[in-house]
Amino acid sequence: MSAFGRVTIVGVGLIGGSLGMAIRRRGLAREVRGVLRSADAIQEAVALGAVDSGTVDLEAGVKGSDLVVLATPPETVVRMAARVVPCLAPGAILTDVTSVKAEIVRAVEALLQTVPAVAFVGGHPMAGNEGRGVTSATPSLFEGTAYLITPTPQTPPEAVNRLANLARGIGAVPVLLGPDEHDRAVAFVSHLPYLIAAALVRATDPAVVAAAGPAFLGATRVAASPVELWGQICRLNRAQILVALRTFGEELRRLERALVDGDRLDVLLEQAQAVRVRLSASAPGAAATGPGA
Amino acid sequence: MSAFGRVTIVGVGLIGGSLGMAIRRRGLAREVRGVLRSADAIQEAVALGAVDSGTVDLEAGVKGSDLVVLATPPETVVRMAARVVPCLAPGAILTDVTSVKAEIVRAVEALLQTVPAVAFVGGHPMAGNEGRGVTSATPSLFEGTAYLITPTPQTPPEAVNRLANLARGIGAVPVLLGPDEHDRAVAFVSHLPYLIAAALVRATDPAVVAAAGPAFLGATRVAASPVELWGQICRLNRAQILVALRTFGEELRRLERALVDGDRLDVLLEQAQAVRVRLSASAPGAAATGPGA
Repeated sequence: MSAFGRVTIVGVGLIGGSLGMAIRRRGLAREVRGVLRSADAIQEAVALGAVDSGTVDLEAGVKGSDLVVLATPPETVVRMAARVVPCLAPGAILTDVTSVKAEIVRAVEALLQTVPAVAFVGGHPMAGNEGRGVTSATPSLFEGTAYLITPTPQTPPEAVNRLANLARGIGAVPVLLGPDEHDRAVAFVSHLPYLIAAALVRATDPAVVAAAGPAFLGATRVAASPVELWGQICRLNRAQILVALRTFGEELRRLERALVDGDRLDVLLEQAQAVRVRLSASAPGAAATGPGA
Repeated sequence: MSAFGRVTIVGVGLIGGSLGMAIRRRGLAREVRGVLRSADAIQEAVALGAVDSGTVDLEAGVKGSDLVVLATPPETVVRMAARVVPCLAPGAILTDVTSVKAEIVRAVEALLQTVPAVAFVGGHPMAGNEGRGVTSATPSLFEGTAYLITPTPQTPPEAVNRLANLARGIGAVPVLLGPDEHDRAVAFVSHLPYLIAAALVRATDPAVVAAAGPAFLGATRVAASPVELWGQICRLNRAQILVALRTFGEELRRLERALVDGDRLDVLLEQAQAVRVRLSASAPGAAATGPGA
């Protein structure tokens, strides 16, 4: 028996499309339906195997589904949820894939106070690739990655378990944490690295970039991804990102002082090395690059 | 005819070993000799195909060679050069693979004033991988990477050409720039990204690292590489690294202010995106990762 009957994915882009492909490939639902913007987009998503069928009608698309995944841009999620919730049957689960959780979870849970039989479980797959849109989607996108799930005291444990099982089913590792804790964590491990990458690109004279090796390319790769999306993420998680920026700035100044004093630099670098080496041993795809870079 | 008769590589680790393998594989020298620390290390390097033969005797190892590559740690290079230069025949070329050039080039050129028939050409292949030592060496290490070459007015152009041809021969792209220009460039594209990676690891609570995705892993990968080597690099290029740290710090504060003001952030991020996208189009292995990370 499939984990879910009908799954509806609202917004079939890189993440939504990859999720549809992974669910279909692994037989985790009887049927995957997509809500898209146009007949052309539906045709493309079906042809690529991201969904079994599609519609441009949000309400019709989610009606009768056991699981609805909101995979639209961050600033649209709450608005979408407000339209979806009244259409869902008791026992249905609503989730999203947004990089910021506290504000979204709070707003969607407020919507659910009038519809207590529907469960909302915040989700955030830590996966991505160089592309955008359904043409970049791949069913293997989530393999070995963390799938962050952010339950609150209001979230039915059964719904959390079903989303965690789905995450495992598509090859990801479900990681449970509260919405605020999530936003603090991703400010450091996702949003800060993005801003650092952008600042590093901005700081570097394009004329010297011909000399760049793997370290620069690896450190700045994420700066090429869509600003439209990152701008929304930065605004939604501003407070936590500012904390992360300040903490990082302090560590950078600590290294700078050690470099000036000629003292303690190796100790500070060795502490970082030990942490990062342990991470390489535990996280998939986290191997170190060499010093020649 | 081979590009070189005998090539001697002093220090057969990741870079020296990969260079030996690449030269042998592509038939760029009649013979590749290694200078190593012990009989065991010689046996291993020969068995792995990094060199044809090896010796622990530096002077004997370099005598009669057309090209000597110093691939020992940065702080040992000038000392090694002082021992090697008197052993070389007229027309021989000496090069190194060090990440910092101005100080080393100046010191080695001073040594050559008494031996003008020997040419020194500073070199810096922008290649590396997760490993260290000859067991991590691979003949493909340099393919598609930049090989920085730092001639000065004293460097015989013929020697520069021969090193550039060798770089091309092993699949790299030779990039010529002066030693000071080199040190300014690598401070931004290599040494700064390393210190940023170390600071980012230090700033991030290890407890939240389970939530890390590709952006964090890519941005911090280099922090796991050998501190022994990076400490030497940082000390040798301190002045330029401090300039790079300050320039980066200003850009980071500019992004922080834009985030606080809620204004201009997207414009600043779009400028960075445009530069990084152009880089992805031109540099090998430089493709962007997605925003979901």
